[in-house]
Formats: sequence, C-alpha cells, structure tokens
Amino acid sequence: MWVLGVTERRVMGAFWVLNLVLFLVQVVGIKGAHGIGEHGVRIWPMPLSVSHSHKSLYVGKDFKIMSQGSKYKDASGILKDGFSRFLAVVKGAHVVDGDTSKLDQSRVLQGLNVFISSTKDELQYGIDESYKLLVPSPDKPTYAHLEAQTVYGALHGLQTLSQLCQFNFSSRVIEILMTPWIINDQPRFSFRGLLIDTSRHYQPLPIIKNVIDSMAYAKLNVLHWHIVDTQSFPLEIPSYPKLWDGAYSTSERYTMADAAEIKRGINVLAELDVPGHALSWGKGYPSLWPSKDCQEPLDVSNEFTFKVIDGILSGCWTLTPHVSKWLKEHSMNESQAYQYFVLQAQKIALLHGYEIVNWEETFNNFGNKLSPKTVVHNWLGGGVAQRVVAAGLRCIVSNQDKWYLDHLDTTWEQFYMNEPLTNITKSEQQKLVIGGEVCMWGETVDASDIQQTIWPRAAAAAERLWTPYDKLAKEAKQVTGRLAHFRCLLNQRGIAAAPLAADTPLTQPGRSAPLEPGSCYLQ
Amino acid sequence: MWVLGVTERRVMGAFWVLNLVLFLVQVVGIKGAHGIGEHGVRIWPMPLSVSHSHKSLYVGKDFKIMSQGSKYKDASGILKDGFSRFLAVVKGAHVVDGDTSKLDQSRVLQGLNVFISSTKDELQYGIDESYKLLVPSPDKPTYAHLEAQTVYGALHGLQTLSQLCQFNFSSRVIEILMTPWIINDQPRFSFRGLLIDTSRHYQPLPIIKNVIDSMAYAKLNVLHWHIVDTQSFPLEIPSYPKLWDGAYSTSERYTMADAAEIKRGINVLAELDVPGHALSWGKGYPSLWPSKDCQEPLDVSNEFTFKVIDGILSGCWTLTPHVSKWLKEHSMNESQAYQYFVLQAQKIALLHGYEIVNWEETFNNFGNKLSPKTVVHNWLGGGVAQRVVAAGLRCIVSNQDKWYLDHLDTTWEQFYMNEPLTNITKSEQQKLVIGGEVCMWGETVDASDIQQTIWPRAAAAAERLWTPYDKLAKEAKQVTGRLAHFRCLLNQRGIAAAPLAADTPLTQPGRSAPLEPGSCYLQ
Repeated sequence: MWVLGVTERRVMGAFWVLNLVLFLVQVVGIKGAHGIGEHGVRIWPMPLSVSHSHKSLYVGKDFKIMSQGSKYKDASGILKDGFSRFLAVVKGAHVVDGDTSKLDQSRVLQGLNVFISSTKDELQYGIDESYKLLVPSPDKPTYAHLEAQTVYGALHGLQTLSQLCQFNFSSRVIEILMTPWIINDQPRFSFRGLLIDTSRHYQPLPIIKNVIDSMAYAKLNVLHWHIVDTQSFPLEIPSYPKLWDGAYSTSERYTMADAAEIKRGINVLAELDVPGHALSWGKGYPSLWPSKDCQEPLDVSNEFTFKVIDGILSGCWTLTPHVSKWLKEHSMNESQAYQYFVLQAQKIALLHGYEIVNWEETFNNFGNKLSPKTVVHNWLGGGVAQRVVAAGLRCIVSNQDKWYLDHLDTTWEQFYMNEPLTNITKSEQQKLVIGGEVCMWGETVDASDIQQTIWPRAAAAAERLWTPYDKLAKEAKQVTGRLAHFRCLLNQRGIAAAPLAADTPLTQPGRSAPLEPGSCYLQ
Repeated sequence: MWVLGVTERRVMGAFWVLNLVLFLVQVVGIKGAHGIGEHGVRIWPMPLSVSHSHKSLYVGKDFKIMSQGSKYKDASGILKDGFSRFLAVVKGAHVVDGDTSKLDQSRVLQGLNVFISSTKDELQYGIDESYKLLVPSPDKPTYAHLEAQTVYGALHGLQTLSQLCQFNFSSRVIEILMTPWIINDQPRFSFRGLLIDTSRHYQPLPIIKNVIDSMAYAKLNVLHWHIVDTQSFPLEIPSYPKLWDGAYSTSERYTMADAAEIKRGINVLAELDVPGHALSWGKGYPSLWPSKDCQEPLDVSNEFTFKVIDGILSGCWTLTPHVSKWLKEHSMNESQAYQYFVLQAQKIALLHGYEIVNWEETFNNFGNKLSPKTVVHNWLGGGVAQRVVAAGLRCIVSNQDKWYLDHLDTTWEQFYMNEPLTNITKSEQQKLVIGGEVCMWGETVDASDIQQTIWPRAAAAAERLWTPYDKLAKEAKQVTGRLAHFRCLLNQRGIAAAPLAADTPLTQPGRSAPLEPGSCYLQ
C-alpha cells in the first residue's frame, strides 16, 4: 500500500537532516473548494473568471441538491456527503431561524442542480477539477446550477458556492448577494499540497480530519502525510506488526483503518522514510539497524552538504561488517550504494503502478539515472525547478525559504509571492511543474497549534497554486483584506486560523496571537 | 433576559480597568464530566471515591442506553444527547472496526442502565450533581450501571465513563480496563466557572460550542459569558435594536437565537457591563453617552485605586450638565451616585428573580449596603473571600494572580494550588464559598488561540473545584502525569489543549507550543 523512495534533506532548527524517503501517490477522495476575487468579490482562492451583478437571493429552508441530466450516479455518496458538509458550514455560523416561506418566492433558491459529465469518481492525480457555477440558473431562476466534468470539480464548485453564502441578520436566513453569478473555474496547477508530520508529534485522527476539511476550503488537494521519521513510527504495517512498537506510546498510533479513514477525505501522498531517519523502525525489529550502536544516519548540525550527509549515511553501512562485505562484493562505494538503493526503490514503485516522487537530492546527484517518470520534489531553495524541467522531469515546488510552515519567521506575504514558474519561460517546461506544496514539519507542532501554524499562510500559497497567474496580485498587500476575510471564514467554521498581523517582538508570523482587541477582519 | 449590575476592576496588560457590570445567573443545561485519581487511576478530575480491580471488559458494538426503573423521562432529550456525545468521543479517536460478537460474550458490555431519581431537569444553580457508577452492574454483569439524583449528575457519570474507555489496538474495539469499577462522586463546589470575553475579540459560535464541550470534559459547569465591553457590543437586544451597531462588524454579532443555542449547552452567567466600558453601547444610541466627548469611564494606566477610577467614572457624570443637575437635586456625590446605580440594579435583578453576582468592588466599598443575597465575585487577590464570608455573604473566587488565564506567565501548577478556602476555617463560612472561576479575558485571545490558552490550565483549577480537599495533591507535581494524560485526551477529542511544558524564553506557560519532538504524555 505504501511505496517508494528517494531522498530528503531539510532544515530542523539549526540542523540539517538527510533521509531517503518512500513515497507514493495514493489517490482517494478530495473534498470541495472555491473560486475568485474580482472587484468587490471575496472568494478565496480567486477563480479563473467571475462575473456578477447586484441582486440578492435567499437560500430556501429546504435547499436541496438535484442532479437532473447528470451522468454521474454518486453510488459512493461523494457528492451527497459534500453537499451535507456544504450545508453544515453555511448554516454553522449562526442559528438560521428565519422563515423563507414569507419572503418573495421568486427570490428564494429552492436548490442546486448539479450536472456531472463523467460517470467515474476514482480520484486519480491530474483529473479534471474544473467547474462552472451559475447563481441562479438561467433556465430555472429559483435554482442554482453547477456543472463539472468530474464530481471533484463539482465539490470545488460547492466550496465556491459556500463562500457566496452569508447569514442575513435581518431576515435570519442565508442570502447570496450580488447575483447573478457566473463563475468559470479551474486550477492553475494540479498538485496543491500540504505536508503534515506525524512522527515528531502524533496528530490525533479528529485533528487530521479538521486539517483535511480546512484544506478543502482553500482548494488544496493533496495531503502529503509524512507518517514516520526518526522519532516515532506510529503506523500499523500488517506485514511487519512490530514496526509500530516504534510509536511514542501505545495510544499514539494509527491503525490501517485509521489511515483508510484519512484517505477517504483527500488525495494522500503517504511517505515512509528509508533508510535515513530509520531509528524508529528498529524499535520493533532491531535487525533493521546496521548495528545496535549505529542505528541510522544521524542529524548533522549547522552545515549541509550532500557529501557530509552521504558520508554519515553510508557510515553505518561501511562500519557494519555484513553491509560492508556486500558493498565490496558489488564493487560499490557508499554513494553508489545510496544511488543503488534509490533506483531499486524506484523500480519497485513503478512495478506496482505508483507515481514516484523524490526529494530533490536524487536529481541533484544522479538525475540522469532517474526514471523519466520521476517527479522531483524541490525543497532546498529556488532555481531547482528550472533545472528539473530543463532535464525533462516533472517538479513539485516546496522551497523551504518560502513554503516551509515550520519557518515561523516566514510571512504570509512571502508565501503568497513565491512563484513556482520563476525563470521558467518555455510553455512545455512550464507544464512539467505540476504544482507545489507547503510543509508543516512537526518539531514544534502538535494538536494544540497545528491549525494556527498552517493557516492563514497555507491559504496564501493555495491561491498562488490555484489562480491564473494574470489574476494573482502583483503585490501581496493587494489581497490583505480578502485573505483576512478568508481567515475569519475559517474561524467561523471552527478552524483556529491565526491573525495576519505582522511580526513583532512578542509574536511571529507563523504562530501569532492577536496583539490587541479588534475585529477579525482587521487582524 | 439579561441582568443586573455591579463593579469590576481588573488588569489588562499594564492597564487597570474599571467598569460596572450587569450580571445574571442564567440556568440552562450542563453537559457531562468525569471522575477520580486513585493509584493507577487516570480520571480527571479525581472523584470523591473510587475502587477498581483488574479485569478487562469490552464495549459492545451496539452499546446502548437504558433507563430501567428510572423516574426521569428525558422529554427534552438531554440524556439521549449526552449519550450520543459520549459515543462520539469514545469512538472518535480511532476507527472501531473490531467485531465484539467474536469475543467472550460474558466480557462484552451490551449497554448502560441509567437510573435517575428526579423527574425534573430544570438546570438550577446548586442542583444535585452527584452520581454513582458501577462497571459492570452487580446485578447485570453485561451492563454498566449509573445512578444519579438528577440528569445532570448522570451526565457527569457519562463523562467519567468516557474516561474509562479506551481503544484496544489488538481487538480494534473499545475496552474498559481494571473493572469492576465502583465510583461515588460529587463536586466539592457547586460553582465551577470559566469566563470568556466576546467583546475584545468576537468568538464564532462553533468555537464557543467547542469551549462548552471541553468544559464538560473537565466538569466545569458555568460559562460566564462576558459579552460586551468598551470595544464591541456583539449581542442583539431586541428592545434596543441599535445596540449591536457597536459590534466590530455586521458579521461579528450574536442573534438571540445564537445566544439561546449557547445556553442550551451549559449554565450561562451572561454579563453586560454598565455604566463603565460603555463606549460600544453608544454606537447605536449616542444618547447613552454622557456626552459625545465623554463617552465612558476610560481605562486607567499603571496604578489602580478605587478612588482614582471612581473619580474618572464619575467625571463624565459631573461634567455633563443634565447628570450633574440630577446629582445635585438628589444631594449625591459621585461615589454615592455609583452606589445608587449598583443598588438600584440589584433591586431590579431581585425583582426579576435573578441571582446577583457582583465583582468585589461593591463589597469593598459599600458591602454593608448590599443585599444579603449578593454573591461577591473576588478577583483582586487573596484574602477577600475570607472577609466576604465573615460578613455572611456568598463568594466566588477568581483571584487574578492565580486564576486569570490571560496572565500567560501563570503556570498550571499555580492554577492547581490555588485553594478557595485559604484561611477560612469555620464550616458555616466555608459553605458560603460557592466556588470559583477561571477567567479568559480576550485582549489577545481570538478563535485561533482560545483553546490552548484555556487548556490545560483550566483543568488544573477544575480539579481544585471538583475534588474533595483531602484527595487533592499536596504538591502539583504529583498530578503531572495524570493531567498530561487529560490534555492528551482533549487532543484526541479535537481540542487544542497546549503542552504542560514549563516556561522558557521562547514560550509561556499560558500558550506554549511544544518545545521539541516527543510523546504527548511527556510534554
């Protein structure tokens, strides 16, 4: 179920870390998302195109979903569940106790008609996520109309619709201002990821589900689940039932059923690190360690070079007689052995039909040996995507200086302005950048602070990844009000998104508390 | 619905603030809570008495509630809803996919029988909250047995039962270890409050509901809702529909239906401040201000004395001709006018059948004039409760040096060790201390950080208020492990309770992030 691997280096506080990672794209079930940001429009992220006028409509008490003419049968209830979530968030901010039957019925929406062209709902990476939303429907003025190629596009449309809805404090019902709305939308990039790390701190299931819900609000579509690392091995692996002896405690673990529950909600890119960061693996199976005294490639402080790290990594191999003997028999030095490990892992992944995602070190060190199907995951800094796509490989952008959420000094403005296609001008090369990912490494993040460390900064990146380049703000400050509105919307939905307020001696952009009393919309 | 008034002084950062407050006890609907802490027992707060043995039982797949012989009919569904919440939290941490039908059926609990003596479920302050929990029932070994005088006692019993339940990673079902359990429990104090402040920052409805849920887990039973203050007036007052023009924004408001929804969940002590902190009142009705240029008694920086503040407060009265004229006609000076205001407010409250809670300033300044029914709410410091009960009045303890959650430098240990009956030795005086309250003033608290600023410190106070004095730890460190376990339980239920970790230059006890990777139970 979980697959295949490559290399990771990243900063942990002042330390540089290396590991090899097992990666696979596991494709299961997005939730919705939303739209645009024309003049006066507050939708986040901004859709491809939006037009609207100035008439208000009300959402009827028994607002229902219909699928007239739709080819999609929703046997697994994906659309139905999405609509239930839509109703819950739209009605959750205030008690809706107004009576729409007393209003002008020509202004009351009775329901939403959803038309989906594709009969399938297998969530493959790269599926069509586009949708078209009309409020009201030109044919049926007391209905809204949503059409999409796939059910996943329709879910995005529901998220956009949810952002058009607001509670009216006079009539006590939900209203939609500025109709008619005509929204055509689709993402700029197909991979819009968020990494969470359940090894440095365990994240309970309800917390992860909340993260998945909030990702859908921002139209992020891939949860990169960094499950295991040096510190703990929380996941059940049925074929090796002692691996999760490496968990922090018996209760800080995930069963396979828990993992399946997580994957029901979203695309999951599940990651198991090998052979670096392997200490936790050996708790249940000490023979996985080169030796008892040399349990893994350890963290390296202060300076990072692949040679140093490679030397430490291979140290356990050369110092351990049976590995050393094997290397000699195969005429390999340490870095050749590392390359051998990675390429073997790639082969296994491809045989099993998985996509391969490799942290960029493999590309930097033996890029010409990698399968052309490899997706290279940038993290070290800028300029890498440029080289990767020039070599004809696909790339995901996560440069740590801008898109690491655990860097608490990185502001939302920096997240917003980080452009994945910097210096990539050729159209065929631009297409190879499949998207980006913001990374919530878990050293100082547990259930108590994960939400406000992720949000609102991840939302800033989410618009960069969703919205067409020409519609993105050229300066971050142009979207401050709209992003503040989105963070307040997250708060109204019970998500602990932090204020946008800038850095001060008392706080940090990545985890700021409000500095003083005030409106949510101004903080 | 909302009532009547007194005086408040408290610290806001470096500022001292004064206001008069409107108070009332509004009694509606507790949720549950839990039990004990004998050797090896992890229940928080610790019950009155606990005994257990060492046999494990399983919770059956269709575990159900019964009320054989019970006099309580549950017409309003309070017990049924409590049982649904019980099942949700017990089953929420992991996917329960084990099959209890394959287990030894003599060890599988089929349900819980709840016996309640009282037919009534009006949630009056001071009702019987005791319960007795037997797992299994001596008569029916495949059932648990819960008995209580009132449904509210039964809800506490359900909370205790929920803390006995845990997920078994082998059988994949819920188990209860260490049966048979015999738990007799009741609170030490009847008033166990938490103050939240929706004026300095608006708190969305879902956030407040989460706070109420989490209060029930710790057996806190009164939400003191400080609704309005200088900064904003978020509440709808139907008779004065322009008052909430003083809200931060049109969306940062509560309808009366929202307020009713909040009160469905718990005892609510709703507070509206007058005449101090009245700036926000005058947004919709400028005539409520003494004059346009003198809108309220303003904050006073640095030093606090009642005379200085009283002088500023009354300043607007003496400087405003029509008020000044009225004072002269009635031969009153400023502090007499203040006293007049408070005592008038008390009369109105008593006429309407409300309990009166006054911040301690009224007692300190004209205690002998107060109605003997007054409950004096201490906040300034220690020693006040002692004087209040010596005067024959009731008291709630909230001394700011130990029980103000916005004091981020106050540790959970200090919260735990704050004893309400300090220096009160006579039994009849002890009875006049009705309880205590921890206060989450909102200057730096919004939807993003309220949970981790409240928890786990409020839980430390909750045990002080629930558990018999003799069973409380004499040193806080004795309960570190059990409290850490409770905070991990909160996390598992989706509540963002912070680590217990101590103060460092990088963090503060009141809102600490994890300092490094590690198990929840050790942080």
